Amino acid sequence: MDDLTAAVSAALTGLRAAGTLVHCQTNNVVTGFTANVLLAAGCSPAMVDDPQDAAVFAGVAGALLINLGTLAAERTEAMRVAVRAATAAGTPWVLDPVAAGPLPARTALARELLAERPAVLRANPSEVLGVAGGGGAGRGVDAGDGPEAALAAAIDLAATYGCAVAVSGPVDVLTDGRAVVRLHGGDPLMTRVTGVGCALGALVAAYLPVAQNPLVAALAATAHLNAAGSRAGQGGPGPGTFAVALLDAVAALEPAQVLASVRIER
Amino acid sequence: MDDLTAAVSAALTGLRAAGTLVHCQTNNVVTGFTANVLLAAGCSPAMVDDPQDAAVFAGVAGALLINLGTLAAERTEAMRVAVRAATAAGTPWVLDPVAAGPLPARTALARELLAERPAVLRANPSEVLGVAGGGGAGRGVDAGDGPEAALAAAIDLAATYGCAVAVSGPVDVLTDGRAVVRLHGGDPLMTRVTGVGCALGALVAAYLPVAQNPLVAALAATAHLNAAGSRAGQGGPGPGTFAVALLDAVAALEPAQVLASVRIER
Amino acid sequence: MDDLTAAVSAALTGLRAAGTLVHCQTNNVVTGFTANVLLAAGCSPAMVDDPQDAAVFAGVAGALLINLGTLAAERTEAMRVAVRAATAAGTPWVLDPVAAGPLPARTALARELLAERPAVLRANPSEVLGVAGGGGAGRGVDAGDGPEAALAAAIDLAATYGCAVAVSGPVDVLTDGRAVVRLHGGDPLMTRVTGVGCALGALVAAYLPVAQNPLVAALAATAHLNAAGSRAGQGGPGPGTFAVALLDAVAALEPAQVLASVRIER
Repeated sequence: MDDLTAAVSAALTGLRAAGTLVHCQTNNVVTGFTANVLLAAGCSPAMVDDPQDAAVFAGVAGALLINLGTLAAERTEAMRVAVRAATAAGTPWVLDPVAAGPLPARTALARELLAERPAVLRANPSEVLGVAGGGGAGRGVDAGDGPEAALAAAIDLAATYGCAVAVSGPVDVLTDGRAVVRLHGGDPLMTRVTGVGCALGALVAAYLPVAQNPLVAALAATAHLNAAGSRAGQGGPGPGTFAVALLDAVAALEPAQVLASVRIER
Repeated sequence: MDDLTAAVSAALTGLRAAGTLVHCQTNNVVTGFTANVLLAAGCSPAMVDDPQDAAVFAGVAGALLINLGTLAAERTEAMRVAVRAATAAGTPWVLDPVAAGPLPARTALARELLAERPAVLRANPSEVLGVAGGGGAGRGVDAGDGPEAALAAAIDLAATYGCAVAVSGPVDVLTDGRAVVRLHGGDPLMTRVTGVGCALGALVAAYLPVAQNPLVAALAATAHLNAAGSRAGQGGPGPGTFAVALLDAVAALEPAQVLASVRIER
Repeated sequence: MDDLTAAVSAALTGLRAAGTLVHCQTNNVVTGFTANVLLAAGCSPAMVDDPQDAAVFAGVAGALLINLGTLAAERTEAMRVAVRAATAAGTPWVLDPVAAGPLPARTALARELLAERPAVLRANPSEVLGVAGGGGAGRGVDAGDGPEAALAAAIDLAATYGCAVAVSGPVDVLTDGRAVVRLHGGDPLMTRVTGVGCALGALVAAYLPVAQNPLVAALAATAHLNAAGSRAGQGGPGPGTFAVALLDAVAALEPAQVLASVRIER
C-alpha cells in the first residue's frame, strides 16, 4: 500500500469513529438524500440554512458544505455568513458550484465563494470550466465535458485558491494543484439518481476533519461512494432500487472493501 | 393502431432518444422524486428556481414545468420570469395548479399563469374546477371530485386558453378542447405516494418537444407513468416499495409495453 | 387492557377511518418523507407554507404541524399566521422545535410558539432542555441527552403550557404534566434515516382529531411508528431498505399488531 492509499485507508477508518457533525447548506432537491447518505456513513447531518442560526452552527460543526443547486436571496446570505463563520472558527468547508457556467447568478456566487478559500471544490467538468471562465458544454446539472477536458482548469483553480479540486466523471480526477490522482470505480446508475454528486460533496466535507489533507478527504469520500455504487449496481433492476441499495452500501462497506472496489491511479 | 395511438407510440420512442432537458420549478415536497422520475425516463432535470438564473434557463431548456404546490414570493417571481422567457424562446411549458380552488394565493396565480398560455394544464379534477371558478370539493391536494365532473370545465379551459388539459383520476381524461380522450390504467397506490401527480406534470413537459402536439404529449406521459404504476403495483407490499418499483419501471418499460398496459379510449 | 391502552387502541382504529387532512409546515429536508408517512397511514398531507394560503388552510385542516427544522423569514411568518388561524378555528397543532437550544433563532421562535399553546410538543431530549432553557448537550438535530434527563423539564413545560410533551429516545417518555408514560419499542435504524422524528411529529398531529386527548394522540402515533420501525428492522440490510420498509409497515400494521409490538409503561 503506497502512502496515498494508506492515507485514504486511515480516513475511511477515521470516519466511522468520528460521527462528524456536517453542516449542509444545499439545494432543495437533494436535502433528504444528502442527509441520508451522511447518516448511513455514521455522521450527523444538520441542514441549517437561515442566516442567524447558520452563523452559529458553522462555528460548531465539524465541516460545512455549500452547494449552489437552488438559490434564494435569504439562503445565499446564510451561505456567506456561514462561510465567514467557518473561516473564523477554522471549520473546513466544501464548495459545490452546481450548474455554474451558463447561469449567471450562481457563477458569480461560485467565484465569490471560491475566493473565500474552501478546502475542496467538488464539481462536474462543465462546472469546473464554468467557474474557471473557460466555457464548457454545461446544460445545467449535466456533465457535457469529460473530467480530462477540465483537468488544466482544475489544476489552475487548485493552485490559485489553495484548495483540492475533485472533478466527477466516469473516471474521477482529483488534484491539489500539484498531484493529479485518478479514481476508477462506481456505476453508471450513479448518474440516474438525483443527488449522488451533491451527496458526494457532503461526504467530502464529512471526511475533512479525519483526513490528512483535503485531497485525501476528497479521495476517501469518492472511493467510499464509488464502492457503494458498485455494490448497489450489482443488485439493482433500475434507478429506484439502486438508490436504496446505495444507502445500504454506504453504511455497510468496511474500509478494506472500499479500497478493493476502486483503483487509485497517481 | 389508430392515428392517436401511433402518435403516442412515436412520442414514447422519441423520448428515449431525446434526453430532454426539463426545467422544473416545482414544490419543495416533490423536487427529489420529480427529478428521479425524469432521470429514470432518460431526461435531464434542472430545478432552477431563482429569478435571475430561471430567466436564462427557461430559454435554453427543452421544456418547462411550473408547479404551484408550495409558493414563496421569490420563487413566484421566478415562475413569472421563467414563463416569460419560455414564451419568448418558444419553450413549451406545463402548468400544474396544485390545490387551486380553496386557497386564494395559488388560485389567483394559477389563473394569471394560465393566461400566459401553457401547452398543457395538468391537474386533479378539483383543481380544474378551482381554476375554472366552479368550486369543487378540493381539500388541498386531494381529488374530491372525479375527472368526469371536471370534464366540461376542462374542455372550456382548453378552448379558451388554447392548451391541452389533462385531468388525473382513476380514469384519466384529457382534452384539447375538441377531442376528449380517456386513459385506463395505473394502480391505486399511485395516490399513496407523494409526488406522483407532480411527477406526471414534469413528464408531460418532457414529452412536449418529442410529441406531435400537446395532447399527445400529455397522453404519452400519462400512459408511461400509468404503465409504470401497474408494473410497480404487481410486486409491492406497500407504498414504500411501490415508489421504488415505480422508478425502476419508468426506466425499464419499452414503448410497446407501455401501450400494452393502458387502454386509450377516444 | 387498561384504560390508557384502550384509548390508544381506539385512536389507532380511528385514524384508519378518518383520513385526516394534516397541514404540515415542516423543514425542507423531510417534506417528502413526512408526506409519504402520512399517506401510508391513510391521511392526506398538505404542505402549505406561504402566509396567505396557510392562513386559510390551517382553519380547514384537521390538524397542523409546525416543525422548525429549516427556517426562512417568509415561512416563519406563515407559521405564525397558521398558528393563529388554527387557534381561532380550534384546529389542534403540534410543535416540533428541531435543534432548539444551541441555535438562537429557532430557540426564540420555539418559545414564542409554545406560548401559543400547541396540543403537543414533540422533541428530542436536548430540544426539550433547550426550549426549557436548561442547556443540554444538543448538537443540532442530535439527542445528546437521554429522555430521562429531560423528564423534569418536560413535566414542567407540559404543566406550564397545558400541552402534552413527547420526548423521543430509545425509550420514549411522554407526559401531560401529571401522568408520565414510557413507551418501549422501535428500532435503532430509526435514527439512521432522516425525518423519522419529524414524521412522528406529523403523525402525532394526524392522531389529534381521533384521540381522546393529546397524550393519547402522542402515544398512539409513537406506538404506530415504533411498531413500524420494529417490523422494518427485521428485514433490512441497511438504512435505505429500512426507510422503504418503514413506509410499507406504517400502511400495513393493524391496531392489534401495533399494540403487540410495543410496551406501554405507566
